[in-house]
Amino acid sequence: MSATADPRFSINQMTVKQLGLPELVAACVELGVQHVGTWRAPVQEYGVEAAAKLLNEAGLSVSTHCRGGFLTAIDPADRKAAIEDNKRAVDEAVTLGTDVLVLVSGGLPAGSYDLAGARERIADALTELAPYAAENGVRLAIEPLHPMYAADRCVVSTLAQALDIAERFPAHQVGVCVDTYHIWWDDRAPEQIARAGAQGRIATFQLADWTTPLPEGVLNGRGQIGDGSIDMRYWRRLVEDQGYSGPIEVELFNDGLWARDGREVLAETAARFTEHAC
Amino acid sequence: MSATADPRFSINQMTVKQLGLPELVAACVELGVQHVGTWRAPVQEYGVEAAAKLLNEAGLSVSTHCRGGFLTAIDPADRKAAIEDNKRAVDEAVTLGTDVLVLVSGGLPAGSYDLAGARERIADALTELAPYAAENGVRLAIEPLHPMYAADRCVVSTLAQALDIAERFPAHQVGVCVDTYHIWWDDRAPEQIARAGAQGRIATFQLADWTTPLPEGVLNGRGQIGDGSIDMRYWRRLVEDQGYSGPIEVELFNDGLWARDGREVLAETAARFTEHAC
Repeated sequence: MSATADPRFSINQMTVKQLGLPELVAACVELGVQHVGTWRAPVQEYGVEAAAKLLNEAGLSVSTHCRGGFLTAIDPADRKAAIEDNKRAVDEAVTLGTDVLVLVSGGLPAGSYDLAGARERIADALTELAPYAAENGVRLAIEPLHPMYAADRCVVSTLAQALDIAERFPAHQVGVCVDTYHIWWDDRAPEQIARAGAQGRIATFQLADWTTPLPEGVLNGRGQIGDGSIDMRYWRRLVEDQGYSGPIEVELFNDGLWARDGREVLAETAARFTEHAC
Repeated sequence: MSATADPRFSINQMTVKQLGLPELVAACVELGVQHVGTWRAPVQEYGVEAAAKLLNEAGLSVSTHCRGGFLTAIDPADRKAAIEDNKRAVDEAVTLGTDVLVLVSGGLPAGSYDLAGARERIADALTELAPYAAENGVRLAIEPLHPMYAADRCVVSTLAQALDIAERFPAHQVGVCVDTYHIWWDDRAPEQIARAGAQGRIATFQLADWTTPLPEGVLNGRGQIGDGSIDMRYWRRLVEDQGYSGPIEVELFNDGLWARDGREVLAETAARFTEHAC
């Protein structure tokens, strides 16, 4: 694999989580990958300042920092802790030099049936979090997750719902994350991408393919680009028709890919991006 | 368990598939269950005429026959075979004495990205199938399945999509199946239930609860009523506000329930229905 990666391609750190940050950076440099989407836990483990220095000295840009959120708790102490933790995520994004913090909203509290109420608590938390982020030059990107995560991970299931929340804030404070894996099934998604674009709220664009059967827990079965049911060029065109010209992150959670050599997976992912999304 | 089941409660045969039809019928009589939703394969195995006789002599009504559909094939021979098979399903429904045949539409053909095209092929197949059914006193009920099944099982993922197809036909020919498991996450579902109701298209109402983690393949993890995230009374009220007064079928695919004594599961399911949905 000696071809140079496409200049729009960004590798989310989770896609090759088997690589330590220095190995990831070295592999990116070798393959010509120009952008990395960082993940909180491994960056914290390596040291946020040290990670920023490593990425910066290698000439890599950080496309997004993933992920804040989990803002649906009812208990006041839990809510306060979640907001404080998200402010630390904003601080990390600043240190890493990215202007996008992706938010995964959180699921239903135990015993609750109330999806609408949980979404209201997210909006409420953002009234404190969004100005803090914007003052620090970071925009929050609400990521709708596939409806199969509505109970336990993210009560925001569609782009329409994400925009309903985002619209309560200025566009420079709150945008949305468009991820093919989560929206590909939704016949309303194209019109919602247009809605997001018209408001200048497409903060980031991520790719993963839909493959079946889904694994137990449905978290770590995101397919390699080209292996599944999603027409990547179609979604890229919709997003770019709205003026999005930033990095395009491939974010795969996949036990099969994690079991392989990380450099090989990175090279394959960059090649699949070129083959299926360019 | 000696309480009599609620008169609106119907047990879908798949919920207790470990019971042979005579055992199921005996257990229903013992518990006062008045309605059964039948399933094609076990009914065919027992013999459709014999099954109808058994159910009828026990005084049980058949709330729905499940399931036809799988109408998304592109190959003409496959399409013709699917339509013929669905006509046999209609014939079975007639023999069983039910006026509702539930349709699970089918997934994407191998290698296809085209969800919208697949939905058009369903509508096209119904132009032949729906009049055949109606002439035999059977209404087709398009069942939207949860978006996690869009690729491999059912390209109709929302009530809105199901109604978009159903509306091309008279209401006595094509209705929809409202199943809590598939729509509970959808903030548009309440308005779509109202739309279905206004058109007289609520053909059947099914319950299953949403529990996590989902099992591998995500097919056999439908939760027992009361075990999950779905407010059954809320959805029942929405459906009944539209005038639906028919049987309410509990349809669970659940490896854990299938591993238990079927009579015990039936009694538990009837009790949970009374506790959480009445």
